Amino acid sequence: MKKKGLPIGIFDSGVGGLTVFKEVITLLPHEDIIYLGDTARVPYGTRSPQTIIRYSQENTRFLLHQGVKILVVACNTSSAVSLPSLKKENEIPVIGVIEPGARRASEVTQNKRIGVIGTEGTVKSRAYERAIQMIDQKIAIISRACPLFVPLAEEGWMDNEVTRLTAQSYLSPLCEEKIDTLVLGCTHYPLLETVIREVMGDEVCLVNSGKETAKEVQRVLNEQGIATPGKRDGSYKFYVTDNAKRFIKVGERFLGRRLGAVNEVT
Amino acid sequence: MKKKGLPIGIFDSGVGGLTVFKEVITLLPHEDIIYLGDTARVPYGTRSPQTIIRYSQENTRFLLHQGVKILVVACNTSSAVSLPSLKKENEIPVIGVIEPGARRASEVTQNKRIGVIGTEGTVKSRAYERAIQMIDQKIAIISRACPLFVPLAEEGWMDNEVTRLTAQSYLSPLCEEKIDTLVLGCTHYPLLETVIREVMGDEVCLVNSGKETAKEVQRVLNEQGIATPGKRDGSYKFYVTDNAKRFIKVGERFLGRRLGAVNEVT
Repeated sequence: MKKKGLPIGIFDSGVGGLTVFKEVITLLPHEDIIYLGDTARVPYGTRSPQTIIRYSQENTRFLLHQGVKILVVACNTSSAVSLPSLKKENEIPVIGVIEPGARRASEVTQNKRIGVIGTEGTVKSRAYERAIQMIDQKIAIISRACPLFVPLAEEGWMDNEVTRLTAQSYLSPLCEEKIDTLVLGCTHYPLLETVIREVMGDEVCLVNSGKETAKEVQRVLNEQGIATPGKRDGSYKFYVTDNAKRFIKVGERFLGRRLGAVNEVT
Repeated sequence: MKKKGLPIGIFDSGVGGLTVFKEVITLLPHEDIIYLGDTARVPYGTRSPQTIIRYSQENTRFLLHQGVKILVVACNTSSAVSLPSLKKENEIPVIGVIEPGARRASEVTQNKRIGVIGTEGTVKSRAYERAIQMIDQKIAIISRACPLFVPLAEEGWMDNEVTRLTAQSYLSPLCEEKIDTLVLGCTHYPLLETVIREVMGDEVCLVNSGKETAKEVQRVLNEQGIATPGKRDGSYKFYVTDNAKRFIKVGERFLGRRLGAVNEVT
C-alpha cells in the first residue's frame, strides 16, 4: 500500500506538542513526521470553543494538504474541544491526547480517585471527566486549571523555587483529595514533572498523555497496516505560523536535541 | 466641529490595555471610548514584528470603521513595532504608549540610568531605548523582558510569594545596575506595582506609561480642538475578538469596576 510511506501529521497550538512528538519518535523511530505549531495564535487554553475548533480545522487542512496518513492532535485543549468535528470531517484516523490519557489513568487508579490538571480550556471542557467516566462511572475526578505552568515551562523555569511554590498552590488541594493518579493534561506539564512529583509524592502515579498517545498511534498504524516498513530513520519537517526563531529556541530546550530547519507558513 | 463628539478608539492585544483605559477615563471623564481587545490572538509579546503589524492594522481598521477621532495603541508591543506604519497609514492622530513613557522617564531620571521592563517583543524592538536616546543620548538604558508578569497578573496573583520571588529574579540585575527610574513597559505591569516597588526600593521612580499616555491624549485633543465639550459622563463600548466571558472576569479585576456589555467580533 502506498499509504505506508506517508508521514504522520502532528499539530499543536505551539511548541508544547513537541513533548508528544518526542514520545512518538521514541516509539516509532522509522516514521516520517510533519509537525505544525500554530505559534501565531497560541495559546488555545484561554480561547472559546468555537475559536479553538476553527483554528484546529485550519491546522488539519494544512497537514492534509501535505499528505499525511494519520493526524495527531497533540494539544489537550484542541483535543478536548475539537476532536469530534475533526473525526467527522476527515477520512484519515484522527488521534487526540485525551482518550489515551484517560484510558491509562483508569487502568492504574486503585482507589478510583483521579486528578486532572490542564489549561482553563481543557478543564472547562470536562473532556477528561467524560472520557474517564465512559470507562468507569465509579471513578471520581478532581480537576484543576494551572495557567502558570505553561509560561513557567516556556521560561525554562522547570525546577526552581517559583515553580515549586506555584505547584504547591495549584496541587495541594488535589493532595488533600487523596487522589492516587494525576493526569498531566497539557503537553507542557511533563516538563515540570520533577516539581509536580515532589509536591504530589511518590505514591501518586503521574500519567503522561503524550506517552499514551504515542502507543495509540502505534496501535492504529499496525491495525490499519499503514506503519512505515523497513528500518531507516524517520525524517522530520517543522512548520510554524509565526516566529520560527522562538520556536527553535524553546523547542530545542524542550526536546534536548536540535530541530533543524523550521518553516513559517500563514 | 463635528469631530468633537466622536469617541476615542483604544486597542490592545487583550485585557492589559484596560490599565490605560483606566488612566484615560480618570483624566478625561467626559470622553466616549470604544475599546477593542484582540483576545483571539493575544499575546502579542512573543510574536514576530510582521505579525504584530498585521494584527495592529486590522484592529485599527475596525476602530476607524466605528468612527473614532483619535487612536490610542494601548499595547506596548504593538506601539513598539507598529506605530510608524499606523501613523503613516491613517489621518487621525495615533498615540502609542512608548513615547509618553520615554519622555517622562527622561524627565525624572537624575543619574541618567533608566531601566525598562516589558514583553520579549517590546524589549527586542529596543523602542524605549530609541525614544529615550532621541531625547538625551547620554542616558544609559538597561532592559529586561519579564514574560511571567503578564500571566501572574491575569491569574490575579498581584501580591503573593510567587510574584515576589519572580520579581526578585527579574529585577535584581536592574537593582545592581543602579538605575534610578524604571519604566513599566507593559500595560499589565502597573497591576504588580506593589511587588515591583518592594523589590526596587523607594528610591527608584516607577513610570507608568499608561498614565503618561492619558496626558498625551489630553494634550492632543486640546491642541487639535477635538475634546468633547460639556460635562456629561462619557460612555464606553467594549469589543473583543474572543471569549468575552474571560475578558469581563479578568478585566473587572483589573479595573475594580463593572465593565457592562462586551461584544464579540471577528
